[in-house]
Amino acid sequence: MKIAVLGTGAGGRAHAAKLLSLGHEVYVGTRDSQVTLGRTEPDFMGVEPFGQWLADYPGIELRSFGEAAAAADFVINGIDGASAVRVLEGIGRHLAGKTLMDYAVPYVYNPEQAHPWPTPWGVMPALDPVDHDSLGERIQRALPAAKVVKACVTQEQETVVDPRGVAGGDHTMFIAGDDADAKAEVTELLRSYGWQDVLDLGPLVSARGMEMYAHMHSAIQFALGGGRFGVKVMR
Amino acid sequence: MKIAVLGTGAGGRAHAAKLLSLGHEVYVGTRDSQVTLGRTEPDFMGVEPFGQWLADYPGIELRSFGEAAAAADFVINGIDGASAVRVLEGIGRHLAGKTLMDYAVPYVYNPEQAHPWPTPWGVMPALDPVDHDSLGERIQRALPAAKVVKACVTQEQETVVDPRGVAGGDHTMFIAGDDADAKAEVTELLRSYGWQDVLDLGPLVSARGMEMYAHMHSAIQFALGGGRFGVKVMR
Repeated sequence: MKIAVLGTGAGGRAHAAKLLSLGHEVYVGTRDSQVTLGRTEPDFMGVEPFGQWLADYPGIELRSFGEAAAAADFVINGIDGASAVRVLEGIGRHLAGKTLMDYAVPYVYNPEQAHPWPTPWGVMPALDPVDHDSLGERIQRALPAAKVVKACVTQEQETVVDPRGVAGGDHTMFIAGDDADAKAEVTELLRSYGWQDVLDLGPLVSARGMEMYAHMHSAIQFALGGGRFGVKVMR
Repeated sequence: MKIAVLGTGAGGRAHAAKLLSLGHEVYVGTRDSQVTLGRTEPDFMGVEPFGQWLADYPGIELRSFGEAAAAADFVINGIDGASAVRVLEGIGRHLAGKTLMDYAVPYVYNPEQAHPWPTPWGVMPALDPVDHDSLGERIQRALPAAKVVKACVTQEQETVVDPRGVAGGDHTMFIAGDDADAKAEVTELLRSYGWQDVLDLGPLVSARGMEMYAHMHSAIQFALGGGRFGVKVMR
């Protein structure tokens, strides 16, 4: 498949590398390729410059968001929650009719809105939207011709692309969306990543619960002292 | 132990019956015992009148909220989220120094605030507070001398008191609170219920994630078509 991964952060890189290893044609989208490739210092999270990372993955092509989406049949949104709707709206014509897998958590990093929650990084970002709406639904409303599927939101990217690295893969991946064919495509992709238990949570409105689970996921991670884990629905 | 269960709903009844079977002295608290015992019709959820239920559990004593709390060493809050803070504040002097296990989800059943989420009951209640605060923390702030432990919030009551009924008990119970001794007491109680994996999520601020998980829990339940399930942290 021709797959676009929008965003050059750790999540986007994990998907792009995995997709390349699975034999897909991979296009990574960014705001401005020259700016992205021109960076030579790690970002504020300590992530290595994208150009340096890309050198290890010949075959992955870096393009503008619109060009990457236009080149692909299947699109993965890895643009941060605060910018995603605006950016995706701007390239909407390249997303029409395509499956758009969205894994973003709508964190708000504004220190004034952050919670004084004792985390390894001092505060806990707030969620916006929360409870009455979700980022997944906002993206779908902004792009009525795209087929949005929320997935991978409840997992670290390392585990998303390597589920067998935790408990031999014996844990659950959740998806939600309003288009059955798009969910079937996403499920197939996730199975190719190694996910054995993909649980369809129904319509995209369930993205609310998936995004709001972010705080629980963080709390579990802090409780375990870091490290990788999965959550399995036992029934 | 002398244990008070505040609230006469399905959750309170499940705890009270289990605690009685474990040999504890059980006091169920209600607003007005005479009114509670005077009901002869099922409530709007179809739950049988409390007096009828109580007849099957000789030994459980029905008292006012304050009297039940005063008689007990350990208190379980089963008062609905909308009323809990107000009611508990009113009987605060009987809760000082005691462990208060709170399992309430702060659902708002006001139809104007409910979400048009396709659920078996048509809408999904909203959460208030959400994200920036939690019911557990509100109760703790209202009762600084009580030791609030959030627990059991992510499970149906039937499974809370009978964890072995799902996957042989091989799933996780989450707790959070600011007092280590109180959490140890709650953990011991949960182990006596049959919980094998009790995961301490740290300070009471983690009640936010636990309460916000409610929508995810509902979505999983709808996806499975009802029935009992548990969630296990695989690590």
